[in-house]
Amino acid sequence: VRSGGRDELVEALKALHPADAAEVLATLRPEEIARFIEILGPETALPIFEFVPFEVQKETLEYLPRNVLVQLISNMRPDERADLVEEMDEVTKDRLLALLIQAERQNLLKLLTYPEDSAGAYMTTDYALLRPETRVRSALDQLRLQAPKKETIYYAYVVDDARRLVGIVSLRDLIMARPENLVGDIMHTNVIAVRVDMDIEEVAKEMVRYDFLAMPVVDGDNRLVGIITYDDIFDVMTEEATEDMYFLANLDTDEKVSSPLRRSVVLRVPWLMVNLATALVVSYTVHVFSDTIQQFVVLASLMPIVAMLGGNAGNQSLTVVVRALALGEMQLKGNWRIVLKEAGVGFCNGLAVGLVMGGIAYLWHRNLWLATIICMAMTINLVVAGLFGAMVPITLRKLNLDPALGSSIFVTTATDVGGFCAFLGLASLFIHQLLSP
Amino acid sequence: VRSGGRDELVEALKALHPADAAEVLATLRPEEIARFIEILGPETALPIFEFVPFEVQKETLEYLPRNVLVQLISNMRPDERADLVEEMDEVTKDRLLALLIQAERQNLLKLLTYPEDSAGAYMTTDYALLRPETRVRSALDQLRLQAPKKETIYYAYVVDDARRLVGIVSLRDLIMARPENLVGDIMHTNVIAVRVDMDIEEVAKEMVRYDFLAMPVVDGDNRLVGIITYDDIFDVMTEEATEDMYFLANLDTDEKVSSPLRRSVVLRVPWLMVNLATALVVSYTVHVFSDTIQQFVVLASLMPIVAMLGGNAGNQSLTVVVRALALGEMQLKGNWRIVLKEAGVGFCNGLAVGLVMGGIAYLWHRNLWLATIICMAMTINLVVAGLFGAMVPITLRKLNLDPALGSSIFVTTATDVGGFCAFLGLASLFIHQLLSP
Repeated sequence: VRSGGRDELVEALKALHPADAAEVLATLRPEEIARFIEILGPETALPIFEFVPFEVQKETLEYLPRNVLVQLISNMRPDERADLVEEMDEVTKDRLLALLIQAERQNLLKLLTYPEDSAGAYMTTDYALLRPETRVRSALDQLRLQAPKKETIYYAYVVDDARRLVGIVSLRDLIMARPENLVGDIMHTNVIAVRVDMDIEEVAKEMVRYDFLAMPVVDGDNRLVGIITYDDIFDVMTEEATEDMYFLANLDTDEKVSSPLRRSVVLRVPWLMVNLATALVVSYTVHVFSDTIQQFVVLASLMPIVAMLGGNAGNQSLTVVVRALALGEMQLKGNWRIVLKEAGVGFCNGLAVGLVMGGIAYLWHRNLWLATIICMAMTINLVVAGLFGAMVPITLRKLNLDPALGSSIFVTTATDVGGFCAFLGLASLFIHQLLSP
Repeated sequence: VRSGGRDELVEALKALHPADAAEVLATLRPEEIARFIEILGPETALPIFEFVPFEVQKETLEYLPRNVLVQLISNMRPDERADLVEEMDEVTKDRLLALLIQAERQNLLKLLTYPEDSAGAYMTTDYALLRPETRVRSALDQLRLQAPKKETIYYAYVVDDARRLVGIVSLRDLIMARPENLVGDIMHTNVIAVRVDMDIEEVAKEMVRYDFLAMPVVDGDNRLVGIITYDDIFDVMTEEATEDMYFLANLDTDEKVSSPLRRSVVLRVPWLMVNLATALVVSYTVHVFSDTIQQFVVLASLMPIVAMLGGNAGNQSLTVVVRALALGEMQLKGNWRIVLKEAGVGFCNGLAVGLVMGGIAYLWHRNLWLATIICMAMTINLVVAGLFGAMVPITLRKLNLDPALGSSIFVTTATDVGGFCAFLGLASLFIHQLLSP
């Protein structure tokens, strides 16, 4: 590919879906990508370029001649452009802003002001506008003219003189209506919209709830400022799921499987240090019972079982609650019932594994006291697991923190401390019976 | 609401978005919902009814008079209807099938044959069809006529005489084209479609990749059999994320935060029993070193630290790899590099926490041998964590199992056994030095 066959590649790129063409392009060096954009021309290249990963986009821009660069950037979708510019260093950003015409520049600067996870940061400003007094016939003509420049024309937003959102009309409604009807007569007036400062995860929940193709975004005065489309929500949902899973595993969301070793080390070590601190608490708990262990060393080999099962059960409760909070399946009020239920599940399952383990302990060591103590300790510890597994994420949420963030360290520490205290504590109380059963 | 005000409620329901109206309805008893459907009439009630949760839908059907039931079921979206019927017992299903006209019945029976997680199970058969020889003008007329019955008319699928998919045309393309053009001349011919038996998670990945609003589904002969729309993908992505998180925490996907206690107990206990079995292996590992622990009981209080940090690091590696596999970010070939990288991260982080812990151990017990041994054991164990954290999900995937399923139990067992073997093994080797440092 790199040597000859450039013409063939150009033809092949044109024939492919832009997403596929972008994948081919992304395997090349930035200067080669820039060369192909020149050959294809900014208009043909743009749909492909928009599917190229950010980092590659950024590097490619350096190699583009000024006129191509201006055309490419001017015609990019405003939300994609803002995301790209956000990643740039100040010098490149300023150079690029200088190239844009006044209106584009202001639009871009405005988009850059919205906080990272807000509706404003994800919305596009390329939406189709209509007026209520327009007839359906000319509304269709307007949409036809707007079509090439707008992200979607399947929903059009009806605004008044002050750009306040007063209705929504779908292209389906328009082509089904009589040409002489007024937009204002056929539009849906019970408009559902989100505020520009709303958290994007909440926006995603609303869009999923209503099965919306596009969600209008308004400012504090109900003036339309943008729309968020279903494909943005695909991305948000993916990111959100990654975030929850990563937080449960004490990972930083910046990490990827492809991150260089050095970066992974730097991102993971802080969490391990936090865990080391809590592990010292666990260690001290065991230390308190050193004499008991020395008198009856079997305890040392059985105590990891109590801790391991508690950790697993705690993680079960934690994950159910974290997921329910993320999906909006539980209210923040009245959730003592959920905490109680998790404790109840812990009690039942603790008794179940405790009885089995008690039986095994008896067969292994022929000590009925030992069997009883490990059964009781496991039951107690799985209740602790249920309580903390449910309470930790609920408490984090009430503190306005992410319910998953660092929660597994808290829960594991609770089940380790709880398990060792229960098991070694009971063993200390009944040490004479244990030693001469 | 229940006593008077029925008329007000009917008016309120009509004014609300169907998703919101459904939420109000779902708070009532099934017989009351049925009554409101009768009052609203099947046509007005249907969009609302489609947003009501499955279980409530199912119960409500029992209370509907036959004629309303037939109208409601006949007009439901085919994919929603199939999902609902799938949940019914045989008697209700047969009763319902008998009420449908021949064509509807065959369509329904056909949809019910597709496996649960296949494209076929999610697709709808209400899509807009066009022929290549149709002129744009009459294509628009056809879409206008089809509009009320089709799930989307924003994409129309162009088929030949054998119903083979030959092209796709968007409503945007159509309204921008000249009325006298042929559909065949303006349609996109490099069609991207999925096979009816493709796994729905793969379909979701494709739709996200191409930002598709709708994806055509074809059979083995490239004949169009249905389409999957963006809102189905919203649901798939949510389910998929839940599944991965649940599997990592050893939970059954049938469980919800609202599941009754009894059900949660039954669903969780099998995994705890599996974990108990692996915990016995861990316990036996410690048992082997009983004499060493009895001679130097400090080991008992320090060994949980080695295990806990290993578990945490293993979970980090596991989650990064499971997520990358789910997002298609890594190939199954050549991933020994990823295993090596994770082991490398484990070595670096193991040394980091090992040195800190070694320092603490020295300050606590004034024993340089102990400090050295715990540092070495933690380093070894975090390498084990990286190796198993990466290898377990990759191996599960190669065996065509879910990479997350039960993986945390394997990894935790590996890090516990690895940690205790390394720490207590080294301690046994250097027991004389430990006792007289």
